[in-house]
Amino acid sequence: MRAVTPFVSFVGAGPGDPELITIKGLRRLRHAAVVIHDRLIPRELLAEARPDACLIDVGKAPGADRPQAAINGLLLAMARQHGAVVRLKGGDPSVFGRLAEEIEAVRAGGVDFEVVPGITAATAAAACAGVSLTARGHSSLVVLATGTAQGSQSPLDLDWEALARLGGTLVFYMAVRSLETITRQLTALGRDPDEPALIVERSGMQGERLLTGRLADIVEVARAAEVTSPALLMTGPTVSPPLRSTPEGMQRLLASIGV
Amino acid sequence: MRAVTPFVSFVGAGPGDPELITIKGLRRLRHAAVVIHDRLIPRELLAEARPDACLIDVGKAPGADRPQAAINGLLLAMARQHGAVVRLKGGDPSVFGRLAEEIEAVRAGGVDFEVVPGITAATAAAACAGVSLTARGHSSLVVLATGTAQGSQSPLDLDWEALARLGGTLVFYMAVRSLETITRQLTALGRDPDEPALIVERSGMQGERLLTGRLADIVEVARAAEVTSPALLMTGPTVSPPLRSTPEGMQRLLASIGV
Repeated sequence: MRAVTPFVSFVGAGPGDPELITIKGLRRLRHAAVVIHDRLIPRELLAEARPDACLIDVGKAPGADRPQAAINGLLLAMARQHGAVVRLKGGDPSVFGRLAEEIEAVRAGGVDFEVVPGITAATAAAACAGVSLTARGHSSLVVLATGTAQGSQSPLDLDWEALARLGGTLVFYMAVRSLETITRQLTALGRDPDEPALIVERSGMQGERLLTGRLADIVEVARAAEVTSPALLMTGPTVSPPLRSTPEGMQRLLASIGV
Repeated sequence: MRAVTPFVSFVGAGPGDPELITIKGLRRLRHAAVVIHDRLIPRELLAEARPDACLIDVGKAPGADRPQAAINGLLLAMARQHGAVVRLKGGDPSVFGRLAEEIEAVRAGGVDFEVVPGITAATAAAACAGVSLTARGHSSLVVLATGTAQGSQSPLDLDWEALARLGGTLVFYMAVRSLETITRQLTALGRDPDEPALIVERSGMQGERLLTGRLADIVEVARAAEVTSPALLMTGPTVSPPLRSTPEGMQRLLASIGV
């Protein structure tokens, strides 16, 4: 058996659209002996792996959780056995990607690693809606928050008063189940109920939808449209319609000429 | 003269490292008849443009500002005359990229557009430092804020009390000149002075440096190291050393095998 140099690349796959991975991320993916990937990554990317690469899905489907400790152990074992491992995560690994836990495990095991950043859902959603997250004089900061209770970290543990008064643009990831809590807390604590709000469902994926409203009524909009996960909520002064300038015809034209 | 279809693609070039542009962004760049770019973009990317493409630098060098209105006018004029225009911006266009103003101009001129997201400086800096911006139980949100006074938007206009109590990870873009204001305000209003802090200077570019300290002493660290723009400040419970796991030798190895 030839000697291998264990190395783990944590690579951001970006959200949904397979063309939103970086050049660097794609190169790492094409080189890897082992690809350990989440459930919510663009499936087309897996076809970019080496024909002899070992692909392992550790995605957390509801009811089929693979414990984080098992993933950590897998990273170390695969790196030691096969060398170049890519840990492919949806979006950006450092934003709600459990990167901290996996880095700690890899580091504790004495295996070298690197992080290749990815497009995070907030900027992808803003791009697909044709809005800016910041604007001079209107929005001078952006908050990325989780809308999902993770362990003890219930969304009710967020400092809602600070979020309500902070201004700027707020983006809540995986916000479907907590949509009512989020919007009620923010408006109850003084955030403008007329502020434009946007939901991006299945960003960059088949069946993507954009739904617009105001902070006070976006829950109703989501309910009427039967929004399901994954979806992201964005609210702030710059998040205003009209959205998505690119007409369908132009999208088709661009696709037809291979752009 | 053949008819052209005016179309503007706002493309995020990512921060510094030319390999951090997306596949989609690179495809747009290679197709464009005109590339209108900022000063702080990876110069290697310009070599990817068509040989007959017109490259226009509208970068705002100190003392040589091109007014935003002139850029807006240029976008419209070039799109109408040449068709496919790429507006290449450093990082992600929707995060402190003046995207809102340019979208408004393009839309008002009746020209179609799209936004192709890019890697924003916060996630690139976290990646190069080998840290996560979030962690279950330790950091459940990330704030991206500007450390530069933009027009009336002085950093002193930020809600420091809310930022001090919010927890999570705070990232200040272009923070060099306001470093003392930022850290003093946060600690004076109750943020933990012992919280790990990190400065990333020239992220992904030649001469990149990472400087670590605590919220209370990072100003001294920056002064001693004579940090200059562009640099970003990151502070929060997950921003802790040891940083940058990848040894230089491994970086060279990866480069030598073309990964």
